Amino acid sequence: MMTSSPAAELLAEIRKQGPLVHSITNNVVTIFTANVLLAIGAAPAMVDIVGESGMFAQVANGMLINLGTPTPEQREASIEAVNGANEAGTPWVLDPVAIGALPIRTELAKKLADMKPTAIRGNASEIRALAGAGAGGRGVDSTDAIDDGVEEFTRLAREKDTVVAVSGPEDFITDGTRILRVKNGDVLLTKVTGGGCALGSIIAAFIAVRGEVSILEAVASAHVVYGVAAERAAAGGVGPGTFAVKLLDALYEIRPADITENERVYEETIAGVAK
Amino acid sequence: MMTSSPAAELLAEIRKQGPLVHSITNNVVTIFTANVLLAIGAAPAMVDIVGESGMFAQVANGMLINLGTPTPEQREASIEAVNGANEAGTPWVLDPVAIGALPIRTELAKKLADMKPTAIRGNASEIRALAGAGAGGRGVDSTDAIDDGVEEFTRLAREKDTVVAVSGPEDFITDGTRILRVKNGDVLLTKVTGGGCALGSIIAAFIAVRGEVSILEAVASAHVVYGVAAERAAAGGVGPGTFAVKLLDALYEIRPADITENERVYEETIAGVAK
Amino acid sequence: MMTSSPAAELLAEIRKQGPLVHSITNNVVTIFTANVLLAIGAAPAMVDIVGESGMFAQVANGMLINLGTPTPEQREASIEAVNGANEAGTPWVLDPVAIGALPIRTELAKKLADMKPTAIRGNASEIRALAGAGAGGRGVDSTDAIDDGVEEFTRLAREKDTVVAVSGPEDFITDGTRILRVKNGDVLLTKVTGGGCALGSIIAAFIAVRGEVSILEAVASAHVVYGVAAERAAAGGVGPGTFAVKLLDALYEIRPADITENERVYEETIAGVAK
Repeated sequence: MMTSSPAAELLAEIRKQGPLVHSITNNVVTIFTANVLLAIGAAPAMVDIVGESGMFAQVANGMLINLGTPTPEQREASIEAVNGANEAGTPWVLDPVAIGALPIRTELAKKLADMKPTAIRGNASEIRALAGAGAGGRGVDSTDAIDDGVEEFTRLAREKDTVVAVSGPEDFITDGTRILRVKNGDVLLTKVTGGGCALGSIIAAFIAVRGEVSILEAVASAHVVYGVAAERAAAGGVGPGTFAVKLLDALYEIRPADITENERVYEETIAGVAK
Repeated sequence: MMTSSPAAELLAEIRKQGPLVHSITNNVVTIFTANVLLAIGAAPAMVDIVGESGMFAQVANGMLINLGTPTPEQREASIEAVNGANEAGTPWVLDPVAIGALPIRTELAKKLADMKPTAIRGNASEIRALAGAGAGGRGVDSTDAIDDGVEEFTRLAREKDTVVAVSGPEDFITDGTRILRVKNGDVLLTKVTGGGCALGSIIAAFIAVRGEVSILEAVASAHVVYGVAAERAAAGGVGPGTFAVKLLDALYEIRPADITENERVYEETIAGVAK
Repeated sequence: MMTSSPAAELLAEIRKQGPLVHSITNNVVTIFTANVLLAIGAAPAMVDIVGESGMFAQVANGMLINLGTPTPEQREASIEAVNGANEAGTPWVLDPVAIGALPIRTELAKKLADMKPTAIRGNASEIRALAGAGAGGRGVDSTDAIDDGVEEFTRLAREKDTVVAVSGPEDFITDGTRILRVKNGDVLLTKVTGGGCALGSIIAAFIAVRGEVSILEAVASAHVVYGVAAERAAAGGVGPGTFAVKLLDALYEIRPADITENERVYEETIAGVAK
């Protein structure tokens, strides 16, 4: 147990600053994403139309681009938003949902990955597909194991100069030279729609308030806090309906001290990485 | 305690008539809005495509136009819907979400405000922006205090010949000559996505069944009933996930007698208003 | 009480196979639909854009086309998806939400009904309208009684060579020569948005794993399992907010043995049907 940690400190910062997080996301998870952001103490907004998304990205403190249901309007609005974010220095997260076999989102994800995302998150199949390996998963589910993709994940992080976060039974986060593994979380997150998508917005909130904390550690911190909240929500063997409700309660009620007592983050060495 | 009140009577009317409320609203709050309407006893429907929204507005009993995520299709469908509503005499509510700095919705809101809305609702920043003052808020959050905008709110109501409702710690409702303040509600409504947006549809339901009750009092009644339900849902210090669930339960279970026992509506004088 | 039944067996199959169910559905019920699918053990995905919906229909195990909010993009994507499904032999369900008076969805529903849906589901007004009788309902609500439409429902099933399922106080399911009535369920399903729409995706999941079970019985089985779960969720007299949460829990926790103990399916004779 630590008396403090980046995760605990950044949670306190989110509560203090209330970062405005702009989320362009799929039409399945909008409400859950916004509720998760509100619960943790951030301010959500979703401006996914052409002509407004770019200027809103400039005033936001952090941003998520999630490609779950990329209509033509959203595709154009996403590019506009990223240009706005980059101009203003707003950090942003890319979530390449279900890329691989589906051509439109795959092409868009590759284009966005070249536009300097602060972080990229997804499951193992999605991130492998973005790295040019693997065929993608089964719909939104991963068919790849994290450990089979370590080389590709770290290479992707180096090539795009970004932080790559891969969700799974244990989360894998790398900036290309360091690797952090987060063991917090609960399998019920995979039984609630948007369990992963909402995490993308939480990552954006943590990056937005990171101050002197590295992007790598800020991204890992988001996984820690979300995972600890999920563990609290799952306590007692609840079903997925109750879990989703209690997850929002837990994100709202959790204190920095709860984080330091429960976080499980481990650093591991990259073997043979060219630095 | 009153033995009856407009709010209690109109709640009973909604249960009896089950008004059909047509909501063209943002893609973040659709499900919550529809669930709130069902819980209180209204019938929700959301027909936001060109070629159908207008004729549906003609058969609906009340309508909401909410500009939270105004795609090109929704923008055109909104104009069509308002024309249909006005032709048929269907009362309708305008919610100019996040206007001010964002140009597309701001222009659309101003156009719609000139098309004779029965009521306009929003937060202080949004309503000030609609009145031509202030720069709008921070995303969907207000950065203005209600008391700083009283002159603009009452002027807007007179100029547009409508009822203006401003949500805040205390709600402010005016027809330009009278002011009602509603002190029911709970701060957790700001921690649930759609807490305000759904109220827009509830207002439409109350106006739809108002009979001889004035529009001003019908709009205030919607705030009262929604606020009393929120107070019940928040009892015991719950988190926002549980609160949202209990809010739906409360709207379903609340009786007219619960309203008369708990409502807190106050009329105040407008100083210096030219009548 | 049976020791086994098609409904119990297919529930076990869903848990075992985890069918990938592609849902093109309305923007009000996306999250609830996906959560219902996850809870029962299926894998949801919603690919409703042109250029991807067709190929995704080919890899999915089952599909729903729901016409609740048919944007131009969704309309084109639906046709593409159905062509893809038919090419690959993916079974699919049509839900003609609110057709009758609204012209765009009515025309689309009629076109889709001619493209060999495996099953069609809706309320009595919607199905009568699809059969060319009646004027449709009141928004998404039925204004017709099931027993007034029996002749039309069975005729529609024969003409389109499909299974027709009509939801109501008792559900009516026919392949044109046989009729099954399902008496499981709870009226609170009508107080939760998407109560019927999500059933469409559940039907797709049951058809996807049916093996040697007839389509008629697979469709009835979906109604049985959904209805038994609803009965459990409604136990104790809850409100609609709590009911929706407990419905997800019940779908997750319910065992095949719970089905055989509680299912209420009855076959009845079609009088005067030309076979």
